[in-house]
Amino acid sequence: MDRISLYWRNATAEAIGDKHGVTERELQEIAPKIKQLYQEQLNDRKAGKLRYRDLPNDSDMVDAVHREVEHFRDKCDVLVVLGIGGRALGNIALQSALNPYTYNLQSDRTRPGPQLFVLDNVDPDQIKAVVDNISPKLKKTVINVISKSGETAETASQFILFRDLLEKKLGKKYKEHILATTDPSGGTLREIATKEGYRTLDVPEGVGGRFTVLSAVGLFSAGMCGIDTDALLEGAAAMDKRLKEPDLLKNPAALIAAISYILDRKGKHISVMMPYSTSLYYLGDWFRQLWAESLGKQVDLKGKDVSAGQTPIKALGTTDQHSQVQLYREGPNDKLITFLEVERFSQKLAIPESMKDVQTLRYLAGSNFQTLINSEKLGTEYALLESKRPTMTVLFPTISPQTVGQFLYLYEVAVSFMGGLYNINTYDQPAVQLGKDATYALMGKDGYADLAKKIEPVAKRDKKYLV
Amino acid sequence: MDRISLYWRNATAEAIGDKHGVTERELQEIAPKIKQLYQEQLNDRKAGKLRYRDLPNDSDMVDAVHREVEHFRDKCDVLVVLGIGGRALGNIALQSALNPYTYNLQSDRTRPGPQLFVLDNVDPDQIKAVVDNISPKLKKTVINVISKSGETAETASQFILFRDLLEKKLGKKYKEHILATTDPSGGTLREIATKEGYRTLDVPEGVGGRFTVLSAVGLFSAGMCGIDTDALLEGAAAMDKRLKEPDLLKNPAALIAAISYILDRKGKHISVMMPYSTSLYYLGDWFRQLWAESLGKQVDLKGKDVSAGQTPIKALGTTDQHSQVQLYREGPNDKLITFLEVERFSQKLAIPESMKDVQTLRYLAGSNFQTLINSEKLGTEYALLESKRPTMTVLFPTISPQTVGQFLYLYEVAVSFMGGLYNINTYDQPAVQLGKDATYALMGKDGYADLAKKIEPVAKRDKKYLV
Repeated sequence: MDRISLYWRNATAEAIGDKHGVTERELQEIAPKIKQLYQEQLNDRKAGKLRYRDLPNDSDMVDAVHREVEHFRDKCDVLVVLGIGGRALGNIALQSALNPYTYNLQSDRTRPGPQLFVLDNVDPDQIKAVVDNISPKLKKTVINVISKSGETAETASQFILFRDLLEKKLGKKYKEHILATTDPSGGTLREIATKEGYRTLDVPEGVGGRFTVLSAVGLFSAGMCGIDTDALLEGAAAMDKRLKEPDLLKNPAALIAAISYILDRKGKHISVMMPYSTSLYYLGDWFRQLWAESLGKQVDLKGKDVSAGQTPIKALGTTDQHSQVQLYREGPNDKLITFLEVERFSQKLAIPESMKDVQTLRYLAGSNFQTLINSEKLGTEYALLESKRPTMTVLFPTISPQTVGQFLYLYEVAVSFMGGLYNINTYDQPAVQLGKDATYALMGKDGYADLAKKIEPVAKRDKKYLV
Repeated sequence: MDRISLYWRNATAEAIGDKHGVTERELQEIAPKIKQLYQEQLNDRKAGKLRYRDLPNDSDMVDAVHREVEHFRDKCDVLVVLGIGGRALGNIALQSALNPYTYNLQSDRTRPGPQLFVLDNVDPDQIKAVVDNISPKLKKTVINVISKSGETAETASQFILFRDLLEKKLGKKYKEHILATTDPSGGTLREIATKEGYRTLDVPEGVGGRFTVLSAVGLFSAGMCGIDTDALLEGAAAMDKRLKEPDLLKNPAALIAAISYILDRKGKHISVMMPYSTSLYYLGDWFRQLWAESLGKQVDLKGKDVSAGQTPIKALGTTDQHSQVQLYREGPNDKLITFLEVERFSQKLAIPESMKDVQTLRYLAGSNFQTLINSEKLGTEYALLESKRPTMTVLFPTISPQTVGQFLYLYEVAVSFMGGLYNINTYDQPAVQLGKDATYALMGKDGYADLAKKIEPVAKRDKKYLV
């Protein structure tokens, strides 16, 4: 199996100096804490928190996903996933990474699975456009609604709309077009699914949304679209083995966490993930959630409230060289940049020789796009090094289900180490609730009248500040 | 014409306190500087720097764009734009904002223009996927290559590939399928275009890439895809009039700049643009370049080198409530968040009543998605206010060419004010060059051998740091 690897020299003091790089001494100082985390939290399971680490070997889950893919595959030209946050970002990342850029534009004949729409917003124009587009194909449309509780406003409202659409068009058969991925035992969506007789998959118990890409949540749509989900899990399982390594310097997840933590304390409050690959760009959105929700926390440090959490950003090479690199090189030195580099793309894609007589373009003749994009990456890495900006690289020998599985698992464990270093609860998201409640209050849900009254003054716009 | 407006109360001390909000006194203190900038730079043209402000009234440019759209429209089912940075991000933003989410998926019959691919990367897999997809349609394919010099490695290599593809398939007729948007008088691409006999449009002189969306660069692809480019420019011209207002409190561009500048100095080093609209999401990429390249600069402050530049981020409501809001509320208070809110979408899109008997979902029955997404926005605004996080809102009454034109122009002028406040050159990007040169060196371009030698040690990976 191709192994991904981490190259971290350009984040060290040796490469860019003590002020902005990690020193050997800082790593030595943090090593005992990493070892303790490794022993007490990361390799043992405490309070059910690390249940996500079992997913690569959960054969019941795998069997269930295979069963549903098998069941739906031939009946489906269009798959619509309704979910948000951790019930969508993994699906989008897998699809973008492992299927062609033009996947949805291919004909039903050549495409290895159904068209896929992952609807993770409640924009009426967007939803209406998708509804109009798929309406002629409803007989071969499957809706995969993913929600643990079934009460998330976005997913619930979409579900009501699409269920209604199917029922109006297909009559009683509509229920054969719905797969609910939800809590195994209770909650609104489980109750509806049971009552109406939908097929179902389980949201894994004890695993937060942002850690569920390698469960039924992320794997069903991937499997439907022809992605080898067994190979994804093989990749994750192989990474799991590599991470059973107590030595900080040999454990890439621990290293990512240690470097990020040390550099955050040196003012690198922003963590940029910058793939040099369009396919891998959406791993950045998955990473954004993993990093932001897991680490963006109040930390009680000896009675004093302080805030933790690097701000994660996604960027795209080479595209953002022409947009962000001016800032990354010459603006505040407050970023740790992680490149994703692909050593071998599916094809090199030759640059023709037809312009070799144009002097300024001669150097391109006979080269190829793989060499070009990787030269651009190295050029940017060099330019950032010259400006003493810390960078790391995750090297993908190829883009495959195995390497993507390794990557996802690597960053899940890395964020667990990070949370341990900050001494926070990596697995909750308490600050999200108030906005949800405020939405309920504004939408008139029972029991939120008091909150609605508190929001009223904010809803009224003060003309003095409207220009 | 529908007017966009700026609501800024929730960025003030009145709303969130002195520590994180803008005080009246701070605005009073900055007002004279704004007035000076207004008089000396923003409303007069100095050193040709503000040439971009003429674009909305440049009738020669408009005529040329109309002429080319007229010429190509009937011959074109597929339009491929080759460009990068400011020669792509505006095109993508216009297309996403003003055409349906499913535009490229529509049939040639119902779509108001050709399929559009804006290729702003050199990923071989992505390019190959597009080439394969359009190959059967080459007879009705038009390539719009956009580069001032013609030497940008990304655009040049793509151009060579697509030119070759057309020539192989169409013989001598290939040149009728190419439109070059380039320097009016010289450079590699202009020379090739003249020699081979392509139709051309001009990249405007004296306007940096990131300010060219409202020129032939951005308008040709928009016009081809059925977007009313005259209305876009009308919107920009209307905003231009509004910004001829010397009073800071009545000038939205000056206010955006003043608030951003004051809050940057209070530690809000990150500027988040968060549309509650999927269509407007890609305005965020355009904004990222505008903000990062214009403001990410070394500032010589009394002989001491310091760095300026808020880091721009794009986020998406409601999607990122389930990904970033935990961090935005509870993590470091280092962000200014600007919401984009749409008062009236193309449709409200009713939420059916079919689940009204489910107690937890009853509140949704009979409402609509427009009300839901805007309640989510207000709910998030409220939650951030409670956490004393500064936010502003740009209100779009509707999404239309006029309102989008206003928005683009508003932020262009705002960044000009910002650059003036930081006392930097807003219009250059000196730090980008080294990475470009390094790429040339690695690709073996003549004259870069010395640099290639300097990069060599970086290119060799030190095994000690590879895990």
